[in-house]
Amino acid sequence: MSSAGTTLRKLREQRPLVHQITNYVVMNETANATLALGALPVMAHAGEEVEEMARIASSLVLNIGTLSEHWIEAMLVAGAAASERQIPVVLDPVGAGATAYRTVTAHRILELVNVTVLRGNVGEIATLVGAQAEVRGVESIGSGLDAAALARTAARTFGLVASVTGAVDHVSDGERVLAVSNGDALLATVTGTGCMSSALTGCFLAAKPDDALAAAAEALAAFGVAAEAAARGAEGPGTFHARLYDALYALDPETLDARVRIEEL
Amino acid sequence: MSSAGTTLRKLREQRPLVHQITNYVVMNETANATLALGALPVMAHAGEEVEEMARIASSLVLNIGTLSEHWIEAMLVAGAAASERQIPVVLDPVGAGATAYRTVTAHRILELVNVTVLRGNVGEIATLVGAQAEVRGVESIGSGLDAAALARTAARTFGLVASVTGAVDHVSDGERVLAVSNGDALLATVTGTGCMSSALTGCFLAAKPDDALAAAAEALAAFGVAAEAAARGAEGPGTFHARLYDALYALDPETLDARVRIEEL
Amino acid sequence: MSSAGTTLRKLREQRPLVHQITNYVVMNETANATLALGALPVMAHAGEEVEEMARIASSLVLNIGTLSEHWIEAMLVAGAAASERQIPVVLDPVGAGATAYRTVTAHRILELVNVTVLRGNVGEIATLVGAQAEVRGVESIGSGLDAAALARTAARTFGLVASVTGAVDHVSDGERVLAVSNGDALLATVTGTGCMSSALTGCFLAAKPDDALAAAAEALAAFGVAAEAAARGAEGPGTFHARLYDALYALDPETLDARVRIEEL
Repeated sequence: MSSAGTTLRKLREQRPLVHQITNYVVMNETANATLALGALPVMAHAGEEVEEMARIASSLVLNIGTLSEHWIEAMLVAGAAASERQIPVVLDPVGAGATAYRTVTAHRILELVNVTVLRGNVGEIATLVGAQAEVRGVESIGSGLDAAALARTAARTFGLVASVTGAVDHVSDGERVLAVSNGDALLATVTGTGCMSSALTGCFLAAKPDDALAAAAEALAAFGVAAEAAARGAEGPGTFHARLYDALYALDPETLDARVRIEEL
Repeated sequence: MSSAGTTLRKLREQRPLVHQITNYVVMNETANATLALGALPVMAHAGEEVEEMARIASSLVLNIGTLSEHWIEAMLVAGAAASERQIPVVLDPVGAGATAYRTVTAHRILELVNVTVLRGNVGEIATLVGAQAEVRGVESIGSGLDAAALARTAARTFGLVASVTGAVDHVSDGERVLAVSNGDALLATVTGTGCMSSALTGCFLAAKPDDALAAAAEALAAFGVAAEAAARGAEGPGTFHARLYDALYALDPETLDARVRIEEL
Repeated sequence: MSSAGTTLRKLREQRPLVHQITNYVVMNETANATLALGALPVMAHAGEEVEEMARIASSLVLNIGTLSEHWIEAMLVAGAAASERQIPVVLDPVGAGATAYRTVTAHRILELVNVTVLRGNVGEIATLVGAQAEVRGVESIGSGLDAAALARTAARTFGLVASVTGAVDHVSDGERVLAVSNGDALLATVTGTGCMSSALTGCFLAAKPDDALAAAAEALAAFGVAAEAAARGAEGPGTFHARLYDALYALDPETLDARVRIEEL
């Protein structure tokens, strides 16, 4: 039977290469989260090599957190190579809504690349589907939006799996909506945990490419379960952050399956 | 009555957006310090978006630690937008004195942007005012300079608040000089703690824009008090670094006010 | 008598400036490792300043982990300045073999710069000498290659000291081969520990420029001894990572000499 634990077990056997074109702020963190979970991260952004790197990877993660023209072009080239090979692509539209440049770039990638999972916060995803939401820099400040409905709308609008993270995460393929309620409030006190969740989504997709809805929800559940373990004994954001890698590394399939809180709405 | 604790309380209520154009080495660290303190960091450096981002921010931090032409241009554009909106701007002239490129760039920003606080070590600030100082890469190696006089001179020369950090920090508006003696020797064993102090200066300025001298001194005191707490129980630079975010997050206004050591010279 | 401890003692007295042009993923980590050990890191990559920075440094570390054209040009300019001044240069060919761009760039640097130590994993070094090896992104996946022979071959092929790291490290000048068996399995669970070992090689070379073979082996032994200490009490990759800086900082020459496991084959 399929489960988050089964996917994690498969991931650790396969050690898939996850190609990440991501922002300067979180590169080390997403690489370490990927490695701690059991996959192999590779960061490469030069136009000269992204196509070749995407051709040997099992999934591709695009993150626009500190974008500029050369990087966008590289994302499009890598995305095209990934689409051609039909490997899963995750897009993290960091800061969409904060500046026009980010919103336009996210739309451009959604149009030109065959994105499998769009992973963002409520503000970012709402911006992309044209809903109203308060965005402050790269943070989404509470909103009255129904996150489940938003996930479903985004999934239908773009023809992909939408993964809307928050206190409770909502993942939808446009029909079904899965709510993931694992996690800890300390995640919001560390920069780049959203980006890490996108990277881990790329890892789970590599191990379960034929069921993007389940893989996306399982990735968030695994990250949440690890966060719950890391929070126990943490004294604040810094020690929590260090312990988060410990917990991802120590995560075993049985414990994961026992603690996963994924509910179909 | 005004105090560091009062400013911290206000900062946490407002959660100001602090736009940082900083170096690759410390981006994650300054973002995490900003977030742990209670403000919202945003990193954006593309010419296409820095003006728009600076327009929604409450303060701007410019740091030349790993500079190149596109980044300098972005700093000038963002700086102009910040100046126009009269939001506070912090300049951290990392490595001024180490290479001509850094010294010239720092002067160029000082000339073209309405910098509110110039935050650097003795070697960097001395270089910028034309005094002799021994600089080694981005480190300032002891000097016989009178840091209080240096801070006053720099403040008068550039018409801003100069914040000269070291074992004891000296902050001056050209008339008054405040000495801040909070901190711990472990700060010098972690890369980017100077950059973090500049980021936190940006946070405090956002909460207290009408008194840059006090805000700059309070930021250093808050960082120093957090460092004192982090050092207790740390086993070296690595665990100190993790505990520093814990301590910034745990800092409460009352404790801060009780431990602040700011003295007017 | 020469020993790793003697070199470490000298390094801490001299506090050499180690200029690093490295990848975005590990900049903070290699800077912190350098600083924790007792040397001074400086990161600078702009064409406008690399020559000047290399002129004041005691060694130069080039790392192609996230390369692009401007960075390669800067590496060549800095490398030329270092060669002219006869200061040691370390090359870390991250991901050579994963893409043609990386392999070609590593060869280009080897041809144009007087590289003192080439530090890489089996897959990277094997690629550069034209041997068969399985490379997966930036990770080297086991191989039947004889690492000692590979180190000797690489040293002879390129006329330098080859430092091939793995569970046991092999360092050769083309004649002698030193095997370093310090270290801990947790090193492989943290991104950038290979890059850190290259940075520390740059530190040791700065303190012992006249014996690159010994300096390269001692650097790996020192890093390995620190890793052994860090592993004691670590709960996983995250706390190990933080404790690694503690251990580098706490490393004393006597303990280092007592624990070093360098053997001539």
